[in-house]
Amino acid sequence: MSDIPRAVDIAEEGPREGFQIETGEISTADKIALIDALSLTGVKRIQVASLVNPRLVPSWADADAVIAGFKPSPAVAYTALWFNKAGLDRALAFRNKLALNGSISLSASEAFSRKNLNRDRPGQIEAMRGQTRAHVAAGIPVTRISVMAAFGCNYGGDIAPADVLATIQDGLAIAADAGAAISDLSLADTMGWATPARIERVVGDVRGRWPDLRISLHLHDTRGLGIANAYEGLRLGVARFDAAVGGLGGCPFAGQPGAPGNIATEELVMLCDEMGIATGVDLDALIEAGRLAERIVGRRLPSAALRSGSLGAFRRRAA
Amino acid sequence: MSDIPRAVDIAEEGPREGFQIETGEISTADKIALIDALSLTGVKRIQVASLVNPRLVPSWADADAVIAGFKPSPAVAYTALWFNKAGLDRALAFRNKLALNGSISLSASEAFSRKNLNRDRPGQIEAMRGQTRAHVAAGIPVTRISVMAAFGCNYGGDIAPADVLATIQDGLAIAADAGAAISDLSLADTMGWATPARIERVVGDVRGRWPDLRISLHLHDTRGLGIANAYEGLRLGVARFDAAVGGLGGCPFAGQPGAPGNIATEELVMLCDEMGIATGVDLDALIEAGRLAERIVGRRLPSAALRSGSLGAFRRRAA
Repeated sequence: MSDIPRAVDIAEEGPREGFQIETGEISTADKIALIDALSLTGVKRIQVASLVNPRLVPSWADADAVIAGFKPSPAVAYTALWFNKAGLDRALAFRNKLALNGSISLSASEAFSRKNLNRDRPGQIEAMRGQTRAHVAAGIPVTRISVMAAFGCNYGGDIAPADVLATIQDGLAIAADAGAAISDLSLADTMGWATPARIERVVGDVRGRWPDLRISLHLHDTRGLGIANAYEGLRLGVARFDAAVGGLGGCPFAGQPGAPGNIATEELVMLCDEMGIATGVDLDALIEAGRLAERIVGRRLPSAALRSGSLGAFRRRAA
Repeated sequence: MSDIPRAVDIAEEGPREGFQIETGEISTADKIALIDALSLTGVKRIQVASLVNPRLVPSWADADAVIAGFKPSPAVAYTALWFNKAGLDRALAFRNKLALNGSISLSASEAFSRKNLNRDRPGQIEAMRGQTRAHVAAGIPVTRISVMAAFGCNYGGDIAPADVLATIQDGLAIAADAGAAISDLSLADTMGWATPARIERVVGDVRGRWPDLRISLHLHDTRGLGIANAYEGLRLGVARFDAAVGGLGGCPFAGQPGAPGNIATEELVMLCDEMGIATGVDLDALIEAGRLAERIVGRRLPSAALRSGSLGAFRRRAA
């Protein structure tokens, strides 16, 4: 197990992922309260909001107020998500609070792209070409390619590793064209098709081709295998993961109503703690933030750790 | 990954584990309906009931009626659980339907044994000595040692692998004394302390000492790491697992109300399917049985697979 990293970098996506999908209305103050609680857990990156069209995503109509309202910690990089020029312009207004970084997002499954983004492969490439140029023009670095549906697709079935490689190649061409230097590669299991065997194959193939790009995994626990996939990633030396406190979020895609979304940050941290991998996160504080998230959304979140507590808490009691 | 087994043997414990812990009353007919549904999934072993004192466990007061009522499949071995002579006698009345096998159950954590069984280490050994002799006298083979709290304990904290080895040694002495031949060893993560690193260490140490004993893992998903632990077991070549359909069951131990119990059988089967490991189980039929279990207990079960469905179902749709 010699590839296991000494430390991992976890991007907390709970606020952005979670508040988007909840059906009840969540107040701006509650959103800010969760971000502020997360800022004190030791997590180093938090995605705080989605700067999307309020008519399309009413739950993020208050994104600007949330970004304006949270209390930033100097130890945390805060990020936001946007998909077009209007979103970019809103993000630019918060240059002082947000770590602004552009991403080239492409789906390895054309079927997913058509269903979810209403674009075929050339359409995706064209859209990202324009967006990447706009970022570069605004002085925002574009350093990351993000591959959606990298492990399988509810609409397209299994995705061949060759399709993932071709998608990354598309992304690199877009970056080169805009003069952007890519250092990071995110492989997203958007619909929960990953298994440890598939993680091993795709990560291996991508690394074989681009050994200098840093890989991060965005894993969904849609079918219950999320943490086994994260463990496989750690075994392979992957040192960057996205996760969501409490397992906030969900799966808006075909045929899976109520299925979990992102892996729970506290389960990933527990796994790392017990493997001797540094995360910088205080697990008990994170579990408390997860319980706060649960009270805010008013439903039971999928994370088992919220029920069980950390091993550390029991160790102290048993000592 | 050359140790991965070609096939695994899964013992379905959902009916016994699940119906014991549910708070609502579950009818005898519903218990039988779930067992009958499971009999058609391809699972080869089903633990159908707990033959315990009805005053202590009222939810299994109808154990004899459940055993009498289910429709046995010739492809399935049905088992039951009991803890004393009275239970053994009830089991003997069902010799024609049940695969009767005795087990020597010992806790690697004396703190757990004191809290949960009200016995210290010598008391445990003495009780198991009497029970093992009674089984042998009744012509029931005792082939298995089952180690509770093999990976840690809410009351005793971390458990050293040496304690697990000493516990197995106790069990082997009990067996030798009664003239029983042990072939199987069950390592149980009774309170959800296992992590992949601990699975590797304990399984490695036990195998190093007794290379001829077959190991099975009984894993709880108390802290969300259950399926990662199962994956580690598979990587190490473990070919026997207990699991519970839908993740039926729960954790009755200190400080973890509402925490999940056993790993969900359908998530284990999915993991095996995708790793090319034969289970003999039809995953879609098993998911349907899990949904039936969910309707019977009237609460949302922890298994994500019940929400998401199998990958096979989506592959067929995408094709």
